[in-house]
Amino acid sequence: MATIKQVAKLAGVSVATVSRVLNNSGYVQVDTRKKVEEAIHKLEYIPNEVARSLYKKESRLVGLLLPDITNPFFPELARGIEDELQKEGFYLLFGNCDEKLEKELNYIQTFVQNNVVGLISAINLADKSNYENLSIPTVFLDRGSESEYSVFSDAKEGGRIAARELIKRGSEKITVLKGPSHVLPAQERFQGTIEVLAQSNVDFQVISTASFSFQEAKTWAKEIFKKYPDTDGIIASNDITATAILHEALIQGKIVPDELQIIGYDDIQQSSLLFPSLSTIRQPIYEMGKEAAKLLISLIKRQIIEESQIKLSVSFVERNTTRKET
Amino acid sequence: MATIKQVAKLAGVSVATVSRVLNNSGYVQVDTRKKVEEAIHKLEYIPNEVARSLYKKESRLVGLLLPDITNPFFPELARGIEDELQKEGFYLLFGNCDEKLEKELNYIQTFVQNNVVGLISAINLADKSNYENLSIPTVFLDRGSESEYSVFSDAKEGGRIAARELIKRGSEKITVLKGPSHVLPAQERFQGTIEVLAQSNVDFQVISTASFSFQEAKTWAKEIFKKYPDTDGIIASNDITATAILHEALIQGKIVPDELQIIGYDDIQQSSLLFPSLSTIRQPIYEMGKEAAKLLISLIKRQIIEESQIKLSVSFVERNTTRKET
Repeated sequence: MATIKQVAKLAGVSVATVSRVLNNSGYVQVDTRKKVEEAIHKLEYIPNEVARSLYKKESRLVGLLLPDITNPFFPELARGIEDELQKEGFYLLFGNCDEKLEKELNYIQTFVQNNVVGLISAINLADKSNYENLSIPTVFLDRGSESEYSVFSDAKEGGRIAARELIKRGSEKITVLKGPSHVLPAQERFQGTIEVLAQSNVDFQVISTASFSFQEAKTWAKEIFKKYPDTDGIIASNDITATAILHEALIQGKIVPDELQIIGYDDIQQSSLLFPSLSTIRQPIYEMGKEAAKLLISLIKRQIIEESQIKLSVSFVERNTTRKET
Repeated sequence: MATIKQVAKLAGVSVATVSRVLNNSGYVQVDTRKKVEEAIHKLEYIPNEVARSLYKKESRLVGLLLPDITNPFFPELARGIEDELQKEGFYLLFGNCDEKLEKELNYIQTFVQNNVVGLISAINLADKSNYENLSIPTVFLDRGSESEYSVFSDAKEGGRIAARELIKRGSEKITVLKGPSHVLPAQERFQGTIEVLAQSNVDFQVISTASFSFQEAKTWAKEIFKKYPDTDGIIASNDITATAILHEALIQGKIVPDELQIIGYDDIQQSSLLFPSLSTIRQPIYEMGKEAAKLLISLIKRQIIEESQIKLSVSFVERNTTRKET
């Protein structure tokens, strides 16, 4: 069998350069890379997993399916995934599916045609069966525990914490925004909230919201104060919705948090820069992305999977849209 | 030469299915696709550009280089690119480079290895020469007119408008935040601002800021009010910085816009939800992404390029961190 030295000699480069080509690290000129690859091919040099995949023309591409990258939750998720993949020499193809099945199927198909070696799906509508017949592994991200390989945060507990914190801080007429019905973690956190409220002795009411978009959030914010002008605590379905509610409350002259407490969900970067800054339930978004990438890489490498469903913790971030504990 | 009917017959599918495979539209089962591709191969059927590229195993992948997707400017840009590419059956590989040359070179190399047919680079440090020896076209996005194929907005005019609007609305001691020195459009807008301020008779001072990150923006906001406690107008380097300044101003009890006017840059989605909502200079971010994708597709298809440097207009968005015109 050929050695790395023989490859380097035939290609007319150093062993270090061959190694860089094999490990896909550092910069190698296109011409040089070509020479090295030809030498590898000619000598049938197969040193390790990386070289083998090069030789077999396997790709290092991973496909990521998202609802919409312009929702601030997803760039952080994507960033976590990419940072982890990059360490291992994998790269991201990504597609926004806008909750449309047709787009999702189209992307799955196209990614497969482009020889991706794995998929991460953070699509809400995703039907598991669309992924079952593929010959590559899929990790489901932010969709609860319904799938074999999944990474998610503890949405039910997050919903419970939000309700407990508002009650503890003195809200007595709480309005809950029930997030989109097709978004599984939004429904789980809603259930957690309702569980706590139902056991308490505060009044509460529920408003259903159909999406997480900035524009629609403004409309719902107006609706809440029209329907429930005397509400003194709002549990928003995410930070964007909470931001819109805070905006509307301040326009209407409400004093936050003295007259009205607001609690968000997610802890996106912008939330700490609002005034008053937003109290919220923090999901470890970036870490969720990293964990999903790690799990997928293990599956691609056929390593032993110790934990196939990874649940991360959430926590209350106390800022200034909630009162001090009494 | 073989016809599409013969391909359909050999593959045992309908002509419509063959067409879907060729045009990469609609959903086709993986098995069916394989049969059709085999039939195409066997009959050496070459009907059009799409089929030819399939046959030649050319990819439909485009590489996108970004500084950091978690800066809210970039998801909108990426979304514009993707929506346009998708219409034409192209797909996005993307990489965050964090303003690091090593990451940029690594992504260029990897994307090329993965047979991308074109690149869009929105990297600030990008050295044109890194792209010149590639055999595929590159479009530079949001980097001014320094490159042959580029899409950008009129940063200098944007900087001028920001200064004019603050002066017109009565600010007399204006503080200008000079954005990162390596970000070309930030420097152009700074020059535009200084040009107008220098010709006016208002006092002004300049603070340099080294990045656009959320965390650092908080620090600069504090610094401004320490150094220039009596400033009555702030021209921020972007909306994130403006958000941090507004936050700090309100903490310090300043009345916005009566005592202090603030103007941002970009018009990211969140800016209209601040309270008071942020007056800013709007860049057509999504459209810039679309235009870059269109230009790249024209280059890939070797079409005649009518305009190789596309400059889009910017405009003042009047909200509530500026006073009414007097």
